[in-house]
Amino acid sequence: MDSFPKYLLDGYKNFMSGRYVEESARYRQLAEEGQKPQTLFIACCDSRAAPETIFDASPGELFVVRNVANMVPPYEPDGQYHGTSAALEFAVEGLKVKNIVVLGHGRCGGIHAALSPNADPLSPGDFIGKWINLLKPAAAQINSNSIMTEGERQTALERISIRNSLANLRSFPNVKEAEKQGKLKLYGAWFDISSGELWVMDNKTGDFIRPD
Amino acid sequence: MDSFPKYLLDGYKNFMSGRYVEESARYRQLAEEGQKPQTLFIACCDSRAAPETIFDASPGELFVVRNVANMVPPYEPDGQYHGTSAALEFAVEGLKVKNIVVLGHGRCGGIHAALSPNADPLSPGDFIGKWINLLKPAAAQINSNSIMTEGERQTALERISIRNSLANLRSFPNVKEAEKQGKLKLYGAWFDISSGELWVMDNKTGDFIRPD
Amino acid sequence: MDSFPKYLLDGYKNFMSGRYVEESARYRQLAEEGQKPQTLFIACCDSRAAPETIFDASPGELFVVRNVANMVPPYEPDGQYHGTSAALEFAVEGLKVKNIVVLGHGRCGGIHAALSPNADPLSPGDFIGKWINLLKPAAAQINSNSIMTEGERQTALERISIRNSLANLRSFPNVKEAEKQGKLKLYGAWFDISSGELWVMDNKTGDFIRPD
Amino acid sequence: MDSFPKYLLDGYKNFMSGRYVEESARYRQLAEEGQKPQTLFIACCDSRAAPETIFDASPGELFVVRNVANMVPPYEPDGQYHGTSAALEFAVEGLKVKNIVVLGHGRCGGIHAALSPNADPLSPGDFIGKWINLLKPAAAQINSNSIMTEGERQTALERISIRNSLANLRSFPNVKEAEKQGKLKLYGAWFDISSGELWVMDNKTGDFIRPD
Repeated sequence: MDSFPKYLLDGYKNFMSGRYVEESARYRQLAEEGQKPQTLFIACCDSRAAPETIFDASPGELFVVRNVANMVPPYEPDGQYHGTSAALEFAVEGLKVKNIVVLGHGRCGGIHAALSPNADPLSPGDFIGKWINLLKPAAAQINSNSIMTEGERQTALERISIRNSLANLRSFPNVKEAEKQGKLKLYGAWFDISSGELWVMDNKTGDFIRPD
Repeated sequence: MDSFPKYLLDGYKNFMSGRYVEESARYRQLAEEGQKPQTLFIACCDSRAAPETIFDASPGELFVVRNVANMVPPYEPDGQYHGTSAALEFAVEGLKVKNIVVLGHGRCGGIHAALSPNADPLSPGDFIGKWINLLKPAAAQINSNSIMTEGERQTALERISIRNSLANLRSFPNVKEAEKQGKLKLYGAWFDISSGELWVMDNKTGDFIRPD
Repeated sequence: MDSFPKYLLDGYKNFMSGRYVEESARYRQLAEEGQKPQTLFIACCDSRAAPETIFDASPGELFVVRNVANMVPPYEPDGQYHGTSAALEFAVEGLKVKNIVVLGHGRCGGIHAALSPNADPLSPGDFIGKWINLLKPAAAQINSNSIMTEGERQTALERISIRNSLANLRSFPNVKEAEKQGKLKLYGAWFDISSGELWVMDNKTGDFIRPD
Repeated sequence: MDSFPKYLLDGYKNFMSGRYVEESARYRQLAEEGQKPQTLFIACCDSRAAPETIFDASPGELFVVRNVANMVPPYEPDGQYHGTSAALEFAVEGLKVKNIVVLGHGRCGGIHAALSPNADPLSPGDFIGKWINLLKPAAAQINSNSIMTEGERQTALERISIRNSLANLRSFPNVKEAEKQGKLKLYGAWFDISSGELWVMDNKTGDFIRPD
């Protein structure tokens, strides 16, 4: 048997001798009483953008979906497998989360792929190409701009993707209803990997601003 | 505008004044050079089972997909949106990860849903019901067993789900090929939320055992 | 006679009893030996964006042109009055400055005017409309984007205007030649009025980034 | 990339750790509510004569045009680019400033150029030469005077240029009208770089006198 990667086992040992010792009571309680996270995060798979790290979160605090480019597909009750929609349903209906945060970040490879429509597919299945189709119209509009730099177009689409996911979240009847009743609040945020800066979305204008 | 949840901003401030200070050079480097994670994790959305926490991982180390019950659907190049398959393609073909770990955990709500086939759908869309269909045959078989306790059935299906995901991973031609060539290794692991114990899968037998 | 505004005279008294006392020798020297500023700033008239304030500059340090939206028109040796071109010539040929900085800023009213092409002219002469024509093609392209917010379009054009001015600076043969010879360097910068953040332009990519 | 001049970044750091700290609330307010300066300054680019310094002005107080020799061209609604006229229109019609101050100063290089009509052009475009043509008749008259010293002729033209700019300001119909209605007041001032003395113009006589 190929043994489990040593660097992961070393990390696990650190966890057990460090954080777990401090929080063992909390883990035991979370196991007995079940999780009661207040917030669902829709975040990216990127190795530099884990919500637990950025928000210094304790176990039990964040229910986290991670897919490429932190996307939420529109409501499609069509009988297909919809991983993100299933997680959303579980969080909103099952766990009754109070907040949903769509968290994007700088230098996102998925967004980069969306802005490179002529790139060869990574595999014959071209799953990235199809997944990123959710952003196709927006990416085409951004790409038609010849006077913004490549970096500016990338940042623009990263933020548009967050607003897109928020709009799609509101296409789910239960999300829309819970938000209307004031039981659920939706937020956008964008993390700058290089500087560590967090930018949060102004829900009225859609602009991203630095929190105080 | 509803302001961003205070407990998240407080957590972010802790991150910035703590971990980010220690790792700012690393973040800057990761921004400039791009991410080069060695491992893709397929993990659960559960708030108690973040891979970064359990493996005490630094930024840049783990590329992480999180969906309900850490599932990988089978290879279906059908033109639909497949978030998990897209992330898998990105990790294997784009980032050339060396390891894939499917990480399950105890008290998993998604597995519990799979073992409760007569429960009412959480919403009319019943996204959880459809998503968990991926485990339907396994769940039916486990449920037909009347002499394992409820807890044993739950743990059993949690582990079967991990083996299921690993089998589905191997239905992707590029994963199969890369594994054959020795460029990619696949692992299963299961985390006990209550005790903090990690169990890793023996790749030959499929059994879960404690690492040394 | 309407007497000179009192708040200005009060400010002048503060200057004389404060800063001037500390720097009187410097003023005397600057009067006797002439000014030898190292840097020409092309900045905006905006009351919130004075280069002397933002860069905490002493008398004699910055030669400063200020017009609406920190613009440099292209090289047009046509015998007309060109205030900005005259100042540029004076700084480069007369004072032999070593640096030119084009300094833009957030919430710029001139840029806002450029993005509002259907607004009524402020006066029959419509001087703003004509001046801002220098940005017309860029503004049209930015305005054709329907998925960026108003704030994002504004910031985008503010930064494009800086790059535009830098390109136009290089249309002046003496600027181009001096830059080629390494005697003169050109820079872009953007000041966020709200947060006080300074962003400097990467001369290779045109992106604006935070200095260390 | 040539990095941004260090002395400017150092100055910016001083600003951020000093003045910005004291005035951050003001900057934030100015960003949110927009600028409302009471006064437009027409000043010179000279590095020794920044209005913000001389009048110890806070951010948001002064809207500032700076060109060589603080000149205002006459009203010319001819469709050409007129940077100073555009700024004037913006200040008077857009911002509704209450005061316009034309600020001249001693040892002005632009005035010196106007008094040296046989000097070689600084560049083939001779932008200074053309710009200073606005003062040509006045300069010729001053130069025809053989019994004032060179220094006296320089000071004389510096002050004439201020009166000239004030006269040209009144050629703009909207300035003329607003002044007539008492909504706008025009002032001249002259700053002695060496002594720090401010001289303000008597609006009736045109003489420059020391304020009390």
